[in-house]
Amino acid sequence: MSPFTANATDAVTSLGELRLIAAIRRWLGRASPPSPAGIGDDCALLPPSRHPQLVTVDPVVHGEHFDDSIPPRAVAAKLLKRNLSDIAAMGGHPRAAVIALALAPDVSLRWLEQFYRGLAATARAYNTPVVGGDITRQRDGFAATLTLIGEAHGPRALTRRGARTGDRIYVTGSLGGSILGHHHRFTPRLAEGAWLAGRPEVRSLMDLSDGLAKDLHALTPDGATPSLSAAAIPVAAAARKLAARDGRPALEHALGDGEDFELLFTVAARADHTAFESAWRRRFRTRLTCIGRFTRTLGPGALPLDAFHGYEHLR
Amino acid sequence: MSPFTANATDAVTSLGELRLIAAIRRWLGRASPPSPAGIGDDCALLPPSRHPQLVTVDPVVHGEHFDDSIPPRAVAAKLLKRNLSDIAAMGGHPRAAVIALALAPDVSLRWLEQFYRGLAATARAYNTPVVGGDITRQRDGFAATLTLIGEAHGPRALTRRGARTGDRIYVTGSLGGSILGHHHRFTPRLAEGAWLAGRPEVRSLMDLSDGLAKDLHALTPDGATPSLSAAAIPVAAAARKLAARDGRPALEHALGDGEDFELLFTVAARADHTAFESAWRRRFRTRLTCIGRFTRTLGPGALPLDAFHGYEHLR
Repeated sequence: MSPFTANATDAVTSLGELRLIAAIRRWLGRASPPSPAGIGDDCALLPPSRHPQLVTVDPVVHGEHFDDSIPPRAVAAKLLKRNLSDIAAMGGHPRAAVIALALAPDVSLRWLEQFYRGLAATARAYNTPVVGGDITRQRDGFAATLTLIGEAHGPRALTRRGARTGDRIYVTGSLGGSILGHHHRFTPRLAEGAWLAGRPEVRSLMDLSDGLAKDLHALTPDGATPSLSAAAIPVAAAARKLAARDGRPALEHALGDGEDFELLFTVAARADHTAFESAWRRRFRTRLTCIGRFTRTLGPGALPLDAFHGYEHLR
Repeated sequence: MSPFTANATDAVTSLGELRLIAAIRRWLGRASPPSPAGIGDDCALLPPSRHPQLVTVDPVVHGEHFDDSIPPRAVAAKLLKRNLSDIAAMGGHPRAAVIALALAPDVSLRWLEQFYRGLAATARAYNTPVVGGDITRQRDGFAATLTLIGEAHGPRALTRRGARTGDRIYVTGSLGGSILGHHHRFTPRLAEGAWLAGRPEVRSLMDLSDGLAKDLHALTPDGATPSLSAAAIPVAAAARKLAARDGRPALEHALGDGEDFELLFTVAARADHTAFESAWRRRFRTRLTCIGRFTRTLGPGALPLDAFHGYEHLR
């Protein structure tokens, strides 16, 4: 379904600002609390926070993050979930979202209704009230920008810094081929992130959005290099499917496709890894794989990661 | 200066993602703290808050909020200040901003550098660190969306609700003709808003963005109507200038032009208004005008506000 319409009565401009805002509040329903906690005042008002606050912002842009093949509900779900994945990547939980839309005059009201209903459903599922927003015209296209405010579960939020040489590298789920559906059907790893933030042996955490080959640089400590075992990389079935189509190795898809929205983290070298992995398996059914460790130099037989490329934005 | 360029070496795509992000961090300089408090991790990390939190989001879109006649530094200043005005309108102070850009491949690097340098200067001037962001391609145009997180100075944030019949209506500054320069040169009324939040006789507060005729509805209590004195409305010199050009009454400009970014608030009927106004004048040089009060029915000789229109978005 296209976000744009040739039918003037279905165009967003047919409604006028006040009626459009009223419609949006109806579409959001219970996902949007009344002001001053939600939409309707100059700012949304949130209670004070006990623990460190988290802030992240990510958009979905037509032609960039989705196309006409993706249902509008799924577009909105992807928008909220990619921000939730960033909150998961610090070990926090979501508190509130605000959403700003920039849309061409020919954006379809039918499409927009489904978009907001999808946002509402996902917001309710993840306990994330939509507390504010803005709608603005632009000449062409559709862009929705969501800012998510979260909070750590305790005094500690896990960052990308903290790994040391010798630490083991872990990844959740399986990687690659997300374009076949995972890029909007994924589940943000909120419970897993929160659990990891409570484990002292976990030293750093991030989510995978641009592909392991590119993202892992952010966790790599100075003077170290990731020595990964190619055989250990959890290659998704979708990556193999894509590989069969385009003749590129499935591993290349796993390392470079991006939009995996899985967690990548490191565990201290001295930790009891068996106990750690057992504790994980008692708590989660989510797949967990140790893919290697940080070493001073590339280990013998280790995957030459620099030969692979992640997703390049603004190409 | 146009945000767009025909010169391929000046186009934003010539730089590549990583070099562009590095350039942005350089342009932001001290306005952007290092991660995890700022740019560079999955989320920005803020300390816990003692008082209620405030969240607002507003964009600037080329062709909508600015055109080629506005210098890029002023575009960025406007973006941050219109959000600061929303924080002022709750009586709070800013804590952190995140900014998401959606830009066409032909956005000019020279323009973008000036935009970010302007953002940095304004962010420093208003003590508002830029803690995160996102940059995404879009087919056409330039849109920047800024989300601002603030905090109340005490347990109380002033909302739009709370006015009662009989209350006096006040406005800061002067109104109308903002298109002649005020729309990007205004000063957000942060100090004034914070002071108002500490005065128990002030019952409701908002900022003027769409024009008094439209915005005042939001403060009007059920069963009441604003009875304003036309002679009391502080008409800006710019509104008179525009009126001389286009033959429309200056009052019409004052009530409907929008983008005044002044504060509109109400004071309890029983309060000592003389004492209140004296206290204001001891504290501020900002003009303060009582423009009328809420009555059950439109007072004799009062301004028929419904005959005037505010700024209509998505027209």
